[in-house]
Amino acid sequence: MILVLKPLVTDAEIDSLQNYLTGRYSVQIHLSRGVDSVILGLVGDTAHVDIEAVAAQDIVERVTRVGEPYKKVNRKFHPDDTIVTVGGFPIGGKQFAVIAGPCSVETEPQITEVAERVKSAGAQFLRGGAYKPRTSPYSFQGLGAEGIDLLIKAREKTGLPIVSEIMSSDALHDFDDVDIIQVGARNMQNFSLLKLLGTFGKPVLLKRGLANTIEEWLMSAEYIMASGNENVILCERGIRTFETATRNTLDISAIPLVKKLSHLPVIVDPTHASGIPWLVEPLTMASIAAGADGIMIEVHNDPPRALSDGAQALTPDQFDAVSARMREVAPVFGRTI
Amino acid sequence: MILVLKPLVTDAEIDSLQNYLTGRYSVQIHLSRGVDSVILGLVGDTAHVDIEAVAAQDIVERVTRVGEPYKKVNRKFHPDDTIVTVGGFPIGGKQFAVIAGPCSVETEPQITEVAERVKSAGAQFLRGGAYKPRTSPYSFQGLGAEGIDLLIKAREKTGLPIVSEIMSSDALHDFDDVDIIQVGARNMQNFSLLKLLGTFGKPVLLKRGLANTIEEWLMSAEYIMASGNENVILCERGIRTFETATRNTLDISAIPLVKKLSHLPVIVDPTHASGIPWLVEPLTMASIAAGADGIMIEVHNDPPRALSDGAQALTPDQFDAVSARMREVAPVFGRTI
Amino acid sequence: MILVLKPLVTDAEIDSLQNYLTGRYSVQIHLSRGVDSVILGLVGDTAHVDIEAVAAQDIVERVTRVGEPYKKVNRKFHPDDTIVTVGGFPIGGKQFAVIAGPCSVETEPQITEVAERVKSAGAQFLRGGAYKPRTSPYSFQGLGAEGIDLLIKAREKTGLPIVSEIMSSDALHDFDDVDIIQVGARNMQNFSLLKLLGTFGKPVLLKRGLANTIEEWLMSAEYIMASGNENVILCERGIRTFETATRNTLDISAIPLVKKLSHLPVIVDPTHASGIPWLVEPLTMASIAAGADGIMIEVHNDPPRALSDGAQALTPDQFDAVSARMREVAPVFGRTI
Amino acid sequence: MILVLKPLVTDAEIDSLQNYLTGRYSVQIHLSRGVDSVILGLVGDTAHVDIEAVAAQDIVERVTRVGEPYKKVNRKFHPDDTIVTVGGFPIGGKQFAVIAGPCSVETEPQITEVAERVKSAGAQFLRGGAYKPRTSPYSFQGLGAEGIDLLIKAREKTGLPIVSEIMSSDALHDFDDVDIIQVGARNMQNFSLLKLLGTFGKPVLLKRGLANTIEEWLMSAEYIMASGNENVILCERGIRTFETATRNTLDISAIPLVKKLSHLPVIVDPTHASGIPWLVEPLTMASIAAGADGIMIEVHNDPPRALSDGAQALTPDQFDAVSARMREVAPVFGRTI
Repeated sequence: MILVLKPLVTDAEIDSLQNYLTGRYSVQIHLSRGVDSVILGLVGDTAHVDIEAVAAQDIVERVTRVGEPYKKVNRKFHPDDTIVTVGGFPIGGKQFAVIAGPCSVETEPQITEVAERVKSAGAQFLRGGAYKPRTSPYSFQGLGAEGIDLLIKAREKTGLPIVSEIMSSDALHDFDDVDIIQVGARNMQNFSLLKLLGTFGKPVLLKRGLANTIEEWLMSAEYIMASGNENVILCERGIRTFETATRNTLDISAIPLVKKLSHLPVIVDPTHASGIPWLVEPLTMASIAAGADGIMIEVHNDPPRALSDGAQALTPDQFDAVSARMREVAPVFGRTI
Repeated sequence: MILVLKPLVTDAEIDSLQNYLTGRYSVQIHLSRGVDSVILGLVGDTAHVDIEAVAAQDIVERVTRVGEPYKKVNRKFHPDDTIVTVGGFPIGGKQFAVIAGPCSVETEPQITEVAERVKSAGAQFLRGGAYKPRTSPYSFQGLGAEGIDLLIKAREKTGLPIVSEIMSSDALHDFDDVDIIQVGARNMQNFSLLKLLGTFGKPVLLKRGLANTIEEWLMSAEYIMASGNENVILCERGIRTFETATRNTLDISAIPLVKKLSHLPVIVDPTHASGIPWLVEPLTMASIAAGADGIMIEVHNDPPRALSDGAQALTPDQFDAVSARMREVAPVFGRTI
Repeated sequence: MILVLKPLVTDAEIDSLQNYLTGRYSVQIHLSRGVDSVILGLVGDTAHVDIEAVAAQDIVERVTRVGEPYKKVNRKFHPDDTIVTVGGFPIGGKQFAVIAGPCSVETEPQITEVAERVKSAGAQFLRGGAYKPRTSPYSFQGLGAEGIDLLIKAREKTGLPIVSEIMSSDALHDFDDVDIIQVGARNMQNFSLLKLLGTFGKPVLLKRGLANTIEEWLMSAEYIMASGNENVILCERGIRTFETATRNTLDISAIPLVKKLSHLPVIVDPTHASGIPWLVEPLTMASIAAGADGIMIEVHNDPPRALSDGAQALTPDQFDAVSARMREVAPVFGRTI
Repeated sequence: MILVLKPLVTDAEIDSLQNYLTGRYSVQIHLSRGVDSVILGLVGDTAHVDIEAVAAQDIVERVTRVGEPYKKVNRKFHPDDTIVTVGGFPIGGKQFAVIAGPCSVETEPQITEVAERVKSAGAQFLRGGAYKPRTSPYSFQGLGAEGIDLLIKAREKTGLPIVSEIMSSDALHDFDDVDIIQVGARNMQNFSLLKLLGTFGKPVLLKRGLANTIEEWLMSAEYIMASGNENVILCERGIRTFETATRNTLDISAIPLVKKLSHLPVIVDPTHASGIPWLVEPLTMASIAAGADGIMIEVHNDPPRALSDGAQALTPDQFDAVSARMREVAPVFGRTI
């Protein structure tokens, strides 16, 4: 961290600032004086330094962070890839993880049929929403705890570990028997929920927020890890931009960037990123090519009858085709499915 | 709502779609046939129609919403301005509401001193954060319930009603004696929390999300109202754009737009919108000129010692100056302070 | 400018970098060594330093600019406000400049009628497009040179100086008798055109690009000034964001920010910023309150018959009302109309 | 195109609007009346209809475009892929086009060395900037006509067709012997230049603007085609978003979307999209996987000595590695290099 001080500061002011800094943070200060400027370089545990507080000091003109503000998610301090293993299936290594299922769990036949179809197509995980974040209070809000029960039944039939989204800490214990707990884009900075999931211990699939930077996303993962849970899976799902031709804009560069900055696995959700079923295949291919560790795709047995997001779901037949193509392409990028 | 059907649809398919629509929603359908296209116009309670579900129907090519998707917040069905009165002070009418206070409640002397200073400058409400949403888990997270207690003490001394942010439904009862509960930008689409606050009954100050459209913002207000709470105050606090010169971009047009679309009061937070103390005055003036019903400004008695966001807070002296200017300008726009 | 060098650099490498820098730029270097880092501070004429070239040097880890990259537009080197006086009317001082007129010049009666109406409402300048940047090649492209002739006739009748947009250097001499040459948002970084207008000498009204930062906008003004033309007027006209309720998002904060960074006058175009006629009045009031030096408003005598942008133009009667309100409000902010 | 009329319109008003529409455009109107609304459906050559002019009509409440506003670039009217063949090398078919070279042409040895290296690595086209759009007037502006001469010499030595950017119509004839003329992102809506290149006849490589939608990009291609030039190559180069970790955000979805909407070839510029050399390889792979027709990569023989953009260029050795990888991956997606 580099602090440029305002012109004409006195030695007493500089001493006072140095005392302020070393009194609060575990840092060493490296002072350098120029003809008409003084620069302080902070070295040490700068991830704990509150950059806004430093910027608020009277004699500080400008602060620049040099190191990353996160530690536990940082690849620098954990060079090897983290592999999160769930129900015997690894996420984050050579194996390319495939998560599929409907937007919402609706009925037992629906979730079971989808589970069987996606399993036979090669998916290793079943996703399904029981608590649904909907823009309108008048839209279907999900089956809640009953939806979780139906997912568990589908797991019993197929053996697929299950992934479902939590919307509130109130419902935490509905997730006692869920394999991976998803935090949705709208809750990426629900810090209370992140801390709670940090102590709960189950693997967390953390979606990137609609308008959150990569750094903010990693800081949210840091919240979970700092609370004691190392099993975090990141999921890029498109960001909000001015373009309206797609529902969101898939930030494909985020995949190699996050893989470099962090040791955590990164998967992609092409369904929400685009909102257009026929874009799922090319975006899945692009994600594999860019180095993603897995993919999460919405599949519904009867999209026109879906209670939510039917317009963007693949049919099981369409998913079969994408899945077959994944198996051809993954090995070219050193992955197996 | 207008549905353009795909070319070459059959009469049976159209009948089936019409049955689907009238079976689920309270709408009348108005069908029109062109040379090579069929259009359905939906009239009635279209706010309850799930546009994505309609778009997922096989024969639908495109759906356009004509009416607004919200009802209770809609000015069409409630032409008069809503005035939320708290502790005797109205928000939403002729009176221009002034809310001021520190980012975080830190100590009793701090919050009391700030409360007394902002009161004497003309503020009618005291804000202060007890639960703080911070990007980093290593930053000060707020005093929690103790912070609320200190706010209550400051209210006892000054008579100012208090505003504080809730971050999680777990902490709801810490807010039993808070006058206005704030929902922050990061929780604008925390629908579980919105529903809970809808039933809790206390006035809610709903900040616009970083990257949420005006329509999504009003839909979140609809969540609160649909759960039974009519006392919603909207707060524009800047949106995230490509511009980095300011922390966010204040969407000044949102003020007159929301005033036209909705009957709810709209206030502005120029501190978070800009992140720059000397911009607070011109942005406050612009907000009054654009028709805002009030303003919320961060004030700290000792910004360099603030535990959060000190770099953007005004000192009490600076707030005095802004406040004096507000009193000159408000009457030109038909407001009193 | 501060350069953080990579770890483990040798003295010879540092010497070589210092020679590279002092050999190309008029800067002094201020070197400081820490335990495991070396920092170079560059002082002097850093506006001429190519930050990307410096970042490309092998041993440079990171470069941060401390000073602004512009000189001639910088208020630091020109503390007094620039006032551009055109046809006896000042832009940039106490006087609030009002520019009004149709999107496109269409016919002599049209432009003359509008000119007379906006003059009688208090406008000091007439705007009108002769060369029109249209998204579609099939839309009306403007009357070209004939449009300029009609503007000149309207000036003869009313005495109002005229403002019109240039789209290409080919047409430069059509603007020999135009009072203020407008550079549109889409040409803000048409650097060839900016240089040409720098030598041509006529006052230039430089609109901000749709997705350009304030710094880039000021750099484009620097192009014009560096080529010898000091008469530059900046015009904020809204930026492109995710919000679709308005055509663009008026960046109201840009007004006080640019006034602080630069001595050039700043005006606002609320018509293009919003695309909605009834928003023109509140946005004009907000612009005055935020410190703008003037306003540019589209007015058409018969909006439904307009050949371009009719949906967003005010009628002369509507403009009368806005104008009357401007006269009431401007004095409150120290301006006269 | 669908027009929803305002409530309570009279028959005479509707007749008048219909006459207005059929008098100006080659469209048939299909009127339908509901209980309290009237809808007009426009069929025919709606690409020529000015949607803003229609929206400006008094009785029109809302207009929605159903068809695309472009014709010549539209795949509907030209189902087969366009292949632009330059110097014997096709762009747009089975062959994956590789364009490489430095940001700026600097000296004869520099451009010749780069040309030879990229040719031996498998590139079929040489790029090099002679006229450079630089944010700062104080940065290197390119060699101009002399740069074009050096490119031509490099072509003579290597046989590689050359690509260079035009910044102004003034310099058109410097491009008489250039094989492909590039229009940069900042000039994507320089409509005068587009029209001129439409009549000039040489193949045009049209980059997407920083903040332009896919539809606007295709409309700019329509300008070139409508002026008579069918040889247009589209180039996605990243859009501007809130994310700052990369220079721009590569919109990977734009590739399959544009391939569906248009018959024109689409290539990708991963260098400008990311601004980070080590991201060029994964983004190139993702582009191939998403269906791109080619790639344009910046390569410099000595990046630290580059006169522009050195920090983002690959060295020839790095380009060799990316090129080798492209040859392995392209066949998996049905392409040859």
